[in-house]
Amino acid sequence: MFKEFINSLQNYKSIGVFSHVRPDGDCIGSQVALCRWLEANGWTAHAFNDDDVPPNMTWLAEFYPIEKPDEEKVRSLDALIMVDGNMPSRFGVIGNLNNSLALPMFMIDHHPDPEDVFIEAVSVPEASSTCELIYRLYEESGIGLIDEVTAKALYTGIITDTGSLHFDSVTPETVEIVADLLRRGDFKPNEVIEKIYSNRTINQYKLLSRALGTIEMFLDNQVAVMHVTQQMLHETGTSNVDTDGFVSYPLSITGVKVAILFKDLKDEGIKMSLRSRSAVDVNVWARKLGGGGHKKAAGAWHEGPLQKAIRDTIEFGKKLIEKSETPAES
Amino acid sequence: MFKEFINSLQNYKSIGVFSHVRPDGDCIGSQVALCRWLEANGWTAHAFNDDDVPPNMTWLAEFYPIEKPDEEKVRSLDALIMVDGNMPSRFGVIGNLNNSLALPMFMIDHHPDPEDVFIEAVSVPEASSTCELIYRLYEESGIGLIDEVTAKALYTGIITDTGSLHFDSVTPETVEIVADLLRRGDFKPNEVIEKIYSNRTINQYKLLSRALGTIEMFLDNQVAVMHVTQQMLHETGTSNVDTDGFVSYPLSITGVKVAILFKDLKDEGIKMSLRSRSAVDVNVWARKLGGGGHKKAAGAWHEGPLQKAIRDTIEFGKKLIEKSETPAES
Repeated sequence: MFKEFINSLQNYKSIGVFSHVRPDGDCIGSQVALCRWLEANGWTAHAFNDDDVPPNMTWLAEFYPIEKPDEEKVRSLDALIMVDGNMPSRFGVIGNLNNSLALPMFMIDHHPDPEDVFIEAVSVPEASSTCELIYRLYEESGIGLIDEVTAKALYTGIITDTGSLHFDSVTPETVEIVADLLRRGDFKPNEVIEKIYSNRTINQYKLLSRALGTIEMFLDNQVAVMHVTQQMLHETGTSNVDTDGFVSYPLSITGVKVAILFKDLKDEGIKMSLRSRSAVDVNVWARKLGGGGHKKAAGAWHEGPLQKAIRDTIEFGKKLIEKSETPAES
Repeated sequence: MFKEFINSLQNYKSIGVFSHVRPDGDCIGSQVALCRWLEANGWTAHAFNDDDVPPNMTWLAEFYPIEKPDEEKVRSLDALIMVDGNMPSRFGVIGNLNNSLALPMFMIDHHPDPEDVFIEAVSVPEASSTCELIYRLYEESGIGLIDEVTAKALYTGIITDTGSLHFDSVTPETVEIVADLLRRGDFKPNEVIEKIYSNRTINQYKLLSRALGTIEMFLDNQVAVMHVTQQMLHETGTSNVDTDGFVSYPLSITGVKVAILFKDLKDEGIKMSLRSRSAVDVNVWARKLGGGGHKKAAGAWHEGPLQKAIRDTIEFGKKLIEKSETPAES
């Protein structure tokens, strides 16, 4: 899977590893594990992201620094590897910078429909996560290099991108990788899980309490919509990132095919997170709204106001829901 | 592990398989998988429980009926196997009935401190779940018998008893069993996960919304308490079983060592669910209150009223919290 990728990479010495803006566990896990693989194999590596590492992933970034990309740093690089994303436009500053720098770009990712701008790309849309692909890289060239740190990094990406191994992207091989990581890393799941999920505040639960009260059903109860407003964030002393995972609540209502969380971020607009547990492809849905993602998880933005965003989104999805003949998966 | 158990069981023909009252996924999964193993190996098997199968497990009971135990049915049996519990008093009607019937009792379970009343017992407190033990039974004698139904039953028990493979009871071997079940059963995780977890109602989320508002912190923010009252159930059109999983919310607050959910069930009293994510042993705590369970998950009852139950419980736990020198696991 990585033979040509590795061969081609040997033409370069100093490598910048980027993940998409607003990074998640699969981004940070991939960056940490890939940079450690590069360094173990003689490359110089730097991990970059425009945005801050989310608070529940800072422990991972302690193993390998995630830096802000500035022009000087980026100019010192020989090549870029983009992980967990397949369009340079998703990579913030570096995507723009490289329009002029024209550094060769590599890519390791599991999103559909990659842009054709990479000199080598490992693009596996059916993979559970980018971290599963980074594990395959280690497996092909240096499985013995997986120590506790790398094991925890890869475990974090796989677990967070599969909803704790719940999604249909999970194969027996994915689960075997997790077993292998627990064994090689010699750690217990809860040591990592609690770092990722058990750092909630009472304020976050106040916000969740408010958000749960907004759930509305559309299109014959097949679409559940939840929303969060700037005012709710303000009154509960929380911020945008505190809504992480909220969309899974409306998604788990009986008969729901698609759930959508609308976040009214005022000046920034309305951010939508779409999740499917049916044949309805929310990547298609999100693309109609100018966004994108996976079949089962995608995102988009709307200029607002909130009620118009909800109306428009439902209108765009109507045909997709009507076309889906299969019932929700429960 | 099961050699003597199987040998001894061969002295009997008609076997009743019981799980504890108010059965959970590990109970039902164990019963379905064990009864199917028994029948495949020439025994006659019946699965019993005093209480109804929970709504999110009825799909499993369609593979194998879980009957109510009546005296006539029980009299036709030659032996009993108790699964997912180790005290006959936890098995309702059958526990009492057998005081006079004196049928030989077998046991397969993963709770600590089993009673010494079984002629053969496979008691492994460090196992993640009783379903992990039933898998070991198949492994020792008939791994090829694991078909889609049995794989889904065992998967359900392991997943529900480990919080989706999050708990520290999960070993690499537990995870490998899950991989093997997915492969032998040829199913995707979400096919089962959505049956277990995606059958929520808006009313349940109204209740959750209310319950999240009750979270209180005690003992230097190391103990988080949440409560649900009969009135909250009434006003949201929900019942006791709809609080399933609620205790995990207060447990995931930063620094919390123990979380306790109090359910004020009026005439029945106050039901407590204690969960630990620290060295604090809630089995010890619950036993002080006349209950019991595991180190990390236990239950007890209090006669009420609610505020007294909370006060008493905190008072009983004070020393345990003070004694615990290790910080919370995050």
